[in-house]
Amino acid sequence: MKSVLICGCDGYIGWGLAMHLAKRGHRVAGFDNLHRRRNVNAVGSISAIPIPTMEERVEYFDGNIEYQMGDATDYEFLSGIVKDFKPDTIVQLAEQPSAPFSMKNQKQAFYTQQNNVLGSLNVLFAIKEFVPDCHLLKLGTMGEYGTPNITIAENPVELEYDGRKETIQFPKQPGSFYHASKVHDTTNILLANRIWGLSCTDVMQGVVYGTRTNEMTDDKLLTRFDFDESFGTAINRFVAQAVIDYPLTPYGKGGQTRGYLALIDSVQCLRLAVENPPKQGEYRVFNQLAKTYSVLELANLVQEVAYDCGITTRIDCIENPRIEKENHYYNVESQKLRNLGFKETRSIKDELHLMFADLSKCGDRIKAHRDVIEPSSFWNGKIHNIVN
Amino acid sequence: MKSVLICGCDGYIGWGLAMHLAKRGHRVAGFDNLHRRRNVNAVGSISAIPIPTMEERVEYFDGNIEYQMGDATDYEFLSGIVKDFKPDTIVQLAEQPSAPFSMKNQKQAFYTQQNNVLGSLNVLFAIKEFVPDCHLLKLGTMGEYGTPNITIAENPVELEYDGRKETIQFPKQPGSFYHASKVHDTTNILLANRIWGLSCTDVMQGVVYGTRTNEMTDDKLLTRFDFDESFGTAINRFVAQAVIDYPLTPYGKGGQTRGYLALIDSVQCLRLAVENPPKQGEYRVFNQLAKTYSVLELANLVQEVAYDCGITTRIDCIENPRIEKENHYYNVESQKLRNLGFKETRSIKDELHLMFADLSKCGDRIKAHRDVIEPSSFWNGKIHNIVN
Repeated sequence: MKSVLICGCDGYIGWGLAMHLAKRGHRVAGFDNLHRRRNVNAVGSISAIPIPTMEERVEYFDGNIEYQMGDATDYEFLSGIVKDFKPDTIVQLAEQPSAPFSMKNQKQAFYTQQNNVLGSLNVLFAIKEFVPDCHLLKLGTMGEYGTPNITIAENPVELEYDGRKETIQFPKQPGSFYHASKVHDTTNILLANRIWGLSCTDVMQGVVYGTRTNEMTDDKLLTRFDFDESFGTAINRFVAQAVIDYPLTPYGKGGQTRGYLALIDSVQCLRLAVENPPKQGEYRVFNQLAKTYSVLELANLVQEVAYDCGITTRIDCIENPRIEKENHYYNVESQKLRNLGFKETRSIKDELHLMFADLSKCGDRIKAHRDVIEPSSFWNGKIHNIVN
Repeated sequence: MKSVLICGCDGYIGWGLAMHLAKRGHRVAGFDNLHRRRNVNAVGSISAIPIPTMEERVEYFDGNIEYQMGDATDYEFLSGIVKDFKPDTIVQLAEQPSAPFSMKNQKQAFYTQQNNVLGSLNVLFAIKEFVPDCHLLKLGTMGEYGTPNITIAENPVELEYDGRKETIQFPKQPGSFYHASKVHDTTNILLANRIWGLSCTDVMQGVVYGTRTNEMTDDKLLTRFDFDESFGTAINRFVAQAVIDYPLTPYGKGGQTRGYLALIDSVQCLRLAVENPPKQGEYRVFNQLAKTYSVLELANLVQEVAYDCGITTRIDCIENPRIEKENHYYNVESQKLRNLGFKETRSIKDELHLMFADLSKCGDRIKAHRDVIEPSSFWNGKIHNIVN
């Protein structure tokens, strides 16, 4: 059993992971600056699923999770909790997770990189200073890679130039200042690994969807669910749209292909990484996803399951707020988590059925904020919007 | 003739460049937060060469340079000056430039990345918002590349994996949180180039040495000269050591090979980049150096020229505070600036003679701070020191 500190335990994944690890018998502490709640409110939205405060959550939960409010960019706070709790693993989820939010304007891009890069930098120093053998489980994103015209490797690759060879990390091409912040994190982590022998699992996670993990046995224990253009991701947004009879709105031609996995599988994978740490001084990358889909395939799947649930919905492709390829090669290696035992818990259709059941109770909350579902801010700087 | 805004005009290179561009007839404005002066004082040192205030400098100088005090991380200030001055070129030198300083502790690593990454991010937004056709001339460092086992290319290279090919930027492997901050800048710049069509010359500059440019016709116009373990770079530090009969102290075996160029050639190269901007929407890399030397070769050269100047000096290799290879392959492509007309102004020995002439007048100032020449902070976290 491990002592696990979760930075960002109030978020969509953080709360689910905290309960999952605690139920597995791990010793869990977490902190959060509650920025996700604040930022979602700032874009005029709320979580579709009502969520209690963190204090209420840890009280409702039948298990032990220590919680403190605090900010990873505050080194005094962070180093204090690391020093006291002495974690075996630190899970770094304390990041602003929205690409569209980071592309809204200078202020949000600045905030995103400040929060993410400096918070993660502090985590590196806290580990070096107080728990040098600690395993850093860092949440990156598949979006760090962009959409290269070659298979995205999970291990380092060989670059040949001018008759000589060098082994390099798979190249990154982030598509937003948010994605770039995660690339910066990776650059800093690799440095800490080289100079201090920091042990790290750098998780390149696909887009996560779903409303439930096994530990959410009571509605009060559900995690947040965002559907606005900034914090709502592709599948989640489509289901929210279907629930309120809003057309599903893929961006552009919908050919953008990405890796996806359900929330229950995200926490499964992160738990597998916690329980199977890297060797001391090892830096390893996990490409964490279940399957790849194009956005249009997802819209079609959601439409189909909506129909099974008695909802007839329309698909309206809209102007793509992002600057990205809508038709591209996409192939990803993702074997390492499977080697540790990762298996999809259920099919995407079964997951979508569960989501419709949960979200059908939240129609009023989604409807009241329907004006923030479609993009208002565009990658090229035009002021409308964006998503996922 | 160009309108050029120099961010960081009070620094070692910034002041020399401001005068050089102004004398060439360019319209020059600059700003600085004066952190270099503060940070050098903070490590217990001073500039070996006494320097006037920025206000006095622009007054003494026979030419027109507009100066304001201000900070690139302050977007209101930065966007104001960009909006008013409407530069054709922004030269981004407003960065904390010391690797050892960034490795001292959490506080300085945090400060370095905050200052450098967020300042440069603001520059990107100010260009996008107010001068979208502006050429960003960004000072990076050859240290972004580390010491790969292949030739460091100046153009993108081809990566073949799993039977397919992709063109990638030459991979980076920074060796300190300072170097990493420059890699982060490059990541952000490439994003701005892709999504906004930002035009950029990303200069990967070698280590700069020397005391003079042609415009420093009066001692009052000399630029700063640092010799402490944090802000003094290899050649400069060796000359300062020789001047006060302090042994030259290469780190480790001294086999570390890097690219170097004289200050007068650094401003020449940057001027060539200003006068020969990239195509609109182009991102280009210049590897900016004159020659490569190992640290031991440099110590030998300095010892030789010192002897010509009547100074007998000793070379004492000391424990390497850095974590770096001391024996490695090093080969760099650097043709693009030569194609624009770059030629070394004089030999390294002639440059060293000029340096001895200038610094021999500053022996007392160096002697008074001799205790900060050798490393006190180590890359592995031990608290002694470092340099270059």
